Amino acid sequence: MAQRNKLNFLNLAALLLLAGGSVAATGTSVEKWGLFEIAFPGPAQGNPFLDVRISASFVLDNVTVEASGFYDGDGIYRLRFMPEKLGRWGYTTHSNVPDLDGKTGEFKVVEPSPQNHGPVRVARTFHFAYADGTPYRPIGTTCYAWIHQGDVLEEQTLKTLAAAPFNKIRFCVFPKRYDWNNGEPPLYPYEGTPPHTWDFGRFNPKFFQHLEKRIAHLRELGIEADIILFHPYDRGHWGFDRMSAAEDDRYVRYTVSRLAAFRNVWWSLANEYDFMDQKHESDWDRFFQIVQAMDPYRHLRSMHNGQLLYNHTQPWVTHVSIQNGSAVEDSARAILYRDVYRKPIVFDEVKYEGDIPRRWGNLTAEEMVFRFWEGTIAGTYLGHGETYLHPQDILWWSKGGVLHGQSPARLAFLRRILKAGPEEGIDPIDKWQNPRYGGQPAEYYLVYFGKQQPTSWPFELPKAKLEEGMEFKTDILDTWNMTTTPVQDVFTIRRKTDYFYADCDDRAISLPGRPYMALCIRRIHP
Amino acid sequence: MAQRNKLNFLNLAALLLLAGGSVAATGTSVEKWGLFEIAFPGPAQGNPFLDVRISASFVLDNVTVEASGFYDGDGIYRLRFMPEKLGRWGYTTHSNVPDLDGKTGEFKVVEPSPQNHGPVRVARTFHFAYADGTPYRPIGTTCYAWIHQGDVLEEQTLKTLAAAPFNKIRFCVFPKRYDWNNGEPPLYPYEGTPPHTWDFGRFNPKFFQHLEKRIAHLRELGIEADIILFHPYDRGHWGFDRMSAAEDDRYVRYTVSRLAAFRNVWWSLANEYDFMDQKHESDWDRFFQIVQAMDPYRHLRSMHNGQLLYNHTQPWVTHVSIQNGSAVEDSARAILYRDVYRKPIVFDEVKYEGDIPRRWGNLTAEEMVFRFWEGTIAGTYLGHGETYLHPQDILWWSKGGVLHGQSPARLAFLRRILKAGPEEGIDPIDKWQNPRYGGQPAEYYLVYFGKQQPTSWPFELPKAKLEEGMEFKTDILDTWNMTTTPVQDVFTIRRKTDYFYADCDDRAISLPGRPYMALCIRRIHP
Repeated sequence: MAQRNKLNFLNLAALLLLAGGSVAATGTSVEKWGLFEIAFPGPAQGNPFLDVRISASFVLDNVTVEASGFYDGDGIYRLRFMPEKLGRWGYTTHSNVPDLDGKTGEFKVVEPSPQNHGPVRVARTFHFAYADGTPYRPIGTTCYAWIHQGDVLEEQTLKTLAAAPFNKIRFCVFPKRYDWNNGEPPLYPYEGTPPHTWDFGRFNPKFFQHLEKRIAHLRELGIEADIILFHPYDRGHWGFDRMSAAEDDRYVRYTVSRLAAFRNVWWSLANEYDFMDQKHESDWDRFFQIVQAMDPYRHLRSMHNGQLLYNHTQPWVTHVSIQNGSAVEDSARAILYRDVYRKPIVFDEVKYEGDIPRRWGNLTAEEMVFRFWEGTIAGTYLGHGETYLHPQDILWWSKGGVLHGQSPARLAFLRRILKAGPEEGIDPIDKWQNPRYGGQPAEYYLVYFGKQQPTSWPFELPKAKLEEGMEFKTDILDTWNMTTTPVQDVFTIRRKTDYFYADCDDRAISLPGRPYMALCIRRIHP
Repeated sequence: MAQRNKLNFLNLAALLLLAGGSVAATGTSVEKWGLFEIAFPGPAQGNPFLDVRISASFVLDNVTVEASGFYDGDGIYRLRFMPEKLGRWGYTTHSNVPDLDGKTGEFKVVEPSPQNHGPVRVARTFHFAYADGTPYRPIGTTCYAWIHQGDVLEEQTLKTLAAAPFNKIRFCVFPKRYDWNNGEPPLYPYEGTPPHTWDFGRFNPKFFQHLEKRIAHLRELGIEADIILFHPYDRGHWGFDRMSAAEDDRYVRYTVSRLAAFRNVWWSLANEYDFMDQKHESDWDRFFQIVQAMDPYRHLRSMHNGQLLYNHTQPWVTHVSIQNGSAVEDSARAILYRDVYRKPIVFDEVKYEGDIPRRWGNLTAEEMVFRFWEGTIAGTYLGHGETYLHPQDILWWSKGGVLHGQSPARLAFLRRILKAGPEEGIDPIDKWQNPRYGGQPAEYYLVYFGKQQPTSWPFELPKAKLEEGMEFKTDILDTWNMTTTPVQDVFTIRRKTDYFYADCDDRAISLPGRPYMALCIRRIHP
């Protein structure tokens, strides 16, 4: 017993690096939404992945959380837990192996550190907030295979991310094989011989430990890890895209058991799910249900499409992850998805800023930023991506590395604008009539002119919640040149038509006749 | 027994007028998809609507269809049946009243007459066809309260419809009270005293007989009756918008029992369902389920929205009825609904051609026709509506009467184009990239230029299913002036880019530099 506790504490200490300080040094306290871990020695013979089941009940007052554990190789079994409540928790293990069953212990959950806001949840139907209520406004990016590139490039990617505006990154668990990324990864998720002789009954713990290290690094950077469980860009090379249903399910369960306690995890069931010819829609339903049942922390769940959208109205989908560049060329298009799903809309792929000879990978930076603004005023969220050709084929979209494009700086500008905006986020003001207006009625407006180049804008607002005599202050935003120019005039409104209020003196705002301009309008009185 | 059979036949004879010839004069044969009716005398005392249940099993070989009957006043109970199979059917009645129970009979179902193609069904996911396989391409209109206007105006409406391009009409069962239509109807659906003292336990058979007469007239004109069961434009004046749940359910059951056997019936659960403040989303789910259970013929079911879309992915929704004008201003918007619902999309309200001082009721005819074309090339369907001010407030949208607008003639032109097009209907060719192209890949294309005014169009087609050497013939369509001009040149294609094929000599088609032009391109070889 003493021996086991010692092992336990040693493992907890080892986890400190991994958990980025979330586990207190004593091993008996952890911060709220931190990662508490306990480890036990157990059988290493046979096939522990298949033969041994381990889980624990974590209990505080009338709250009981059941969490599955996993075999981590070398005769070590681990249980992880993300506490959502302060106080002294107890746990009891359950296992079909007597030595792993009925273990108990206690630990204290303390206040979260300042940069820990908890996991991201859906807020106000179309938006997100961290568990502590802090608004979360995703500006994501994608590096599908960045964790399969080896430490040098991966650490460069992390350094780039540290200075970039992105607070979410999409990436795959399984390695990817596609143009500009045809190498073999340093680690594989299964025991076996590359490229395609695998024992799908034996996971490779080192692979998952590496993945977890990267997730923890992202957490330290305040970046959500949007983890893609399946993808089609294997095409049978390794065969991770065509395992049996039982193998798929085991993989999902094992991965969720390992990762769910990381507060910055999101589940993306697949990238381009509909391009995975071996699977049926019912498989995806089942995977969602497994993730939902296995993840006691209810991390966000969605799935990214190729050409065919999944039925995101299903109750197990928390938000809508969409690939569609066309839909964010026009705020009036993007709005339509909000209506049909009544969930947050995240355009996780809107094509890429870059210069590759594919029609999905050669947007100008201006076009990428334009799409972010069209989507933003529609009350939706977007993800960035970059595909500039590179002498060593290090394209950000696939491998990470450094950013070469011009859009990230502008997305940082957008992020600052949104941060200074209403806590409730941006919603369409008059969705099917005046899709150019986003904001919160009578409080705050973003008016975006996109590719139009007006030299003047008559001060007019759609009527929702407006009253005569309200006064507004305006900033002119140049979304490309990243400037904010306050307009000196204060505009006082009167009812002008059945649908609009205008400045009482019919004044207009002068604009510079350039594209990509916007207005930020705030009510200052009453 | 003889007496009852006599009554039965008398009623059948009476029904002949109603059923438009679908019941054979002998009463013992009916055409496939016709309306077979039997009537029985029964108790008139008490409240037959509440006290008496009657239904019948209709049997042919191994097919049994259960159909509910209804009380039609004056001591008469009726059962209606729409046979979907040729042969000698038998029936047996079921009732809690012994005199109505266990009645049996036989009748013969014969080949349908030439204009009878059966009920409309969903075909190829996004389209419609009659039960006999004939394509059905809806071009609908709306006259919400036309059946509440008295015979003179109603017959004028039917005359107008007979000459109009519309093959579907949306209208309400309950009377409507709204601007330009504040009168009282000649008949009410319940016994009682207008405006709001009703016995919701006693239907008014005369009201429903009148409704059925109008449905039968529409059937004779080849027009589908898109019947709106609930709507908010009562606002408590009569109170049909705020009955109890039990009263609502009884109304739905009674109406479906009466109308389901008409082959041209569609069920629209509501108009602007979300504006009915007294009801919850679960009420609409329940109504759908009642209709689904009560209608043995599986007529099309949908529901029209105000601002909030119903979850049309529900299994009881057969097609998507949408109010949204914005979505058909741009084919790329309309396409998005196809993706999310994977069902036929019918934009039943896209605003109205007219001149009323409401932003939803003052489209130009050009704009109405433009929207039809944008929606059509997106692979969706649209409904027309008209709101021109009138000295006697006879606005087509509400009351029917005559059409004053300029769009119907252009919609007739569109209908002819579609009829001459592919049997499969129009689908987007390259949905998120080139939404201007609708048709069937490598077979048939409609290319629509909308408000653009090109003077030349280089012959280019998105690559789907194309092969070098294919030859195409083109007509230039002026969708506003309703002309079709054949282009003399035959275009032979070669691969031009990764995504397009073009004419092998890079020839272009000259266009007149006017808006609302389209091209109709057909493969002629091989």
